[in-house]
Amino acid sequence: MQPESLETLRLTPDRDILHVTLNRPKSRNAMSLQMVRELQQVFDSAESSGEYRAVVLRGAEGHFCAGGDIRDMANARAALGSASEDPFRSLNREFGRMITRVNHSPLTVVAVLEGAVLGGGFGLACVSDVAITHAKAKFGLPETGLGIPPAQIAPFVVKRIGLTNARRLALLGARFDGSEALRLGIAHACHDDDTLEEALRETLEQLRRCAPGANAMTKQLLLQAADCRNGTELDALLDQAADDFARSVQGDEGQEGTMAFMQKRLPRWAE
Amino acid sequence: MQPESLETLRLTPDRDILHVTLNRPKSRNAMSLQMVRELQQVFDSAESSGEYRAVVLRGAEGHFCAGGDIRDMANARAALGSASEDPFRSLNREFGRMITRVNHSPLTVVAVLEGAVLGGGFGLACVSDVAITHAKAKFGLPETGLGIPPAQIAPFVVKRIGLTNARRLALLGARFDGSEALRLGIAHACHDDDTLEEALRETLEQLRRCAPGANAMTKQLLLQAADCRNGTELDALLDQAADDFARSVQGDEGQEGTMAFMQKRLPRWAE
Amino acid sequence: MQPESLETLRLTPDRDILHVTLNRPKSRNAMSLQMVRELQQVFDSAESSGEYRAVVLRGAEGHFCAGGDIRDMANARAALGSASEDPFRSLNREFGRMITRVNHSPLTVVAVLEGAVLGGGFGLACVSDVAITHAKAKFGLPETGLGIPPAQIAPFVVKRIGLTNARRLALLGARFDGSEALRLGIAHACHDDDTLEEALRETLEQLRRCAPGANAMTKQLLLQAADCRNGTELDALLDQAADDFARSVQGDEGQEGTMAFMQKRLPRWAE
Repeated sequence: MQPESLETLRLTPDRDILHVTLNRPKSRNAMSLQMVRELQQVFDSAESSGEYRAVVLRGAEGHFCAGGDIRDMANARAALGSASEDPFRSLNREFGRMITRVNHSPLTVVAVLEGAVLGGGFGLACVSDVAITHAKAKFGLPETGLGIPPAQIAPFVVKRIGLTNARRLALLGARFDGSEALRLGIAHACHDDDTLEEALRETLEQLRRCAPGANAMTKQLLLQAADCRNGTELDALLDQAADDFARSVQGDEGQEGTMAFMQKRLPRWAE
Repeated sequence: MQPESLETLRLTPDRDILHVTLNRPKSRNAMSLQMVRELQQVFDSAESSGEYRAVVLRGAEGHFCAGGDIRDMANARAALGSASEDPFRSLNREFGRMITRVNHSPLTVVAVLEGAVLGGGFGLACVSDVAITHAKAKFGLPETGLGIPPAQIAPFVVKRIGLTNARRLALLGARFDGSEALRLGIAHACHDDDTLEEALRETLEQLRRCAPGANAMTKQLLLQAADCRNGTELDALLDQAADDFARSVQGDEGQEGTMAFMQKRLPRWAE
Repeated sequence: MQPESLETLRLTPDRDILHVTLNRPKSRNAMSLQMVRELQQVFDSAESSGEYRAVVLRGAEGHFCAGGDIRDMANARAALGSASEDPFRSLNREFGRMITRVNHSPLTVVAVLEGAVLGGGFGLACVSDVAITHAKAKFGLPETGLGIPPAQIAPFVVKRIGLTNARRLALLGARFDGSEALRLGIAHACHDDDTLEEALRETLEQLRRCAPGANAMTKQLLLQAADCRNGTELDALLDQAADDFARSVQGDEGQEGTMAFMQKRLPRWAE
């Protein structure tokens, strides 16, 4: 991936953390098809490079992401009839492919939520590992008010905050702020202008104390656990987790981590 | 359904919203077998009529529902031996059939929770899409104190608030008020006498801004998402959701919603 | 089980409730392999004796449990190569076997969380039915900071508090206190020195008002419900629950519970 080829994203590497800025500020960073594709390319490239352990997602100029892009919808309408697949369908589905992909990235994903966090932006926030919101951010699922379902987003909202609250939010097209997003469990922390940047800095510092490989392994385990039933499925997952444990405790990170702990120093990855 | 034939419910249509009042105030609206059957009839009839988009469930004279009906239990005991199926079993199972049915109704279900919200009343509250509670409502699962399990209710409590809190509530036969119901996620909002009616009015106003068909589609999607695993199951659900999206964006609601948004007016369904 | 043969646990029966104290205070009750095995023996024995309805888990001298035991890890390292199975793997897996077992115990499990509630201690707390925490307890998943995954623990954290918060806790190796544990849903109540003992006493009193057999049946139902999908699976569970209901309402507890309720007296099990 060549950063200069990106039209909708701005990349700012900071050692092992890649800051990705949604960068269409004129449309409050609306999630165009181009942005959907570039996000997937950026994750592909960041993961395969082996240089990064985490991605910070944030929007340019005070908004995270205001949802889908109107121009894409117009293009889809224009393409009706000529395309082999319904262009509305493929436009919508591509967005779901992207958040599914981000959800399963082995990189730790930190989202900084400010201004508009609507529709697709809301969906993207729901697949972050750590979400820090500004108290005045504006969250919402406006779709049903426009006569359409929040199709690719709703499943991720349910997985983020549970069915009970997802029902209310989606069926009322509810709007709410950052403190409510914290209460609902969409975000993990809520800050104002004075403390937001410091909270992000501390989160990244805390993240860097954890071993990158152990984190990737743990994230995979957590995602599997969320789908796993008691009984034979859970037993199988715990068997696999024991294998992971045995491998990592004897691996580089496990040996370095134990050593550092006994020598009362920071492990290599945290320096 | 002929409203006049209902013994336990009172129906009050308000345009596209059907107000259903549990109406056995002498027994704090205890959920008799008759009421269980009438609730199913009312939902069948309201859905097939095509006249309604939502149902508001509420109890007469200050109580939502105090749980099962003692007379039904006595009748079941009297019928022991003569019935082909165990009458306690069929009585209990019928209640579960009703809340399963209400849970999956394409209509949006709003519950107003006041006074006693116990046992079966608690279970019914757990399948609403939006639940507004009075601060002084009395919630509880008293069953285990009577030597029986909250059999048809417990699964819906787990799906409403998660296993962790369901364990404590059911195994301690806990009693608690509306503000705790809000904290636990049983209700979405908690009000007192001064604000409850206004909160209901605002909820219905907000609901009316959302398109009825899009809401029915979205509710179905949310219920499916709650059961759906990552991987091929989620992919299949997102495929189906993309089909729903494409169909609705080109349908009446989607066209009207987009048009109204561009013309900065309320869509037809919200007038 | 002969209490005097236990090296790591102290047992204090109080009528139908068995108090189990994790008793390795010099290592803040670190969860040694010996303790893992003894906990399983104690549950086996307490269940089969028929004398107990509940277990209270607590740590000696102000700490619940500080996680895995360093000596076990050293022993595992020493045994590498000679054992038929990887000793790290079997050490880790045995812990998961224990919490799986405690999770499914028909006895109601009450945890009192004080001081260190770390790693494996955190995992054990996550399978309690009722958890009461001291406000100053120190919770955390330090594993990833040591270069290893919280392998047997992570799945139970996800099932306790959901994926969203589990992601943050595990991937940041987060540390937090009792009031945050309450907010996250790990504990059900948070107290300080003045009220903790009274809260435990009240919890046990409340528990004793519920019928032991109905509680065991209800706990099993709740665990099944957490894994159950809507549709045919839920229908089958509700069928089974109706059988349970019919059986228990006609059984000793159901008859005594109904009688006591009508006679306005405490049921036999609550005396």
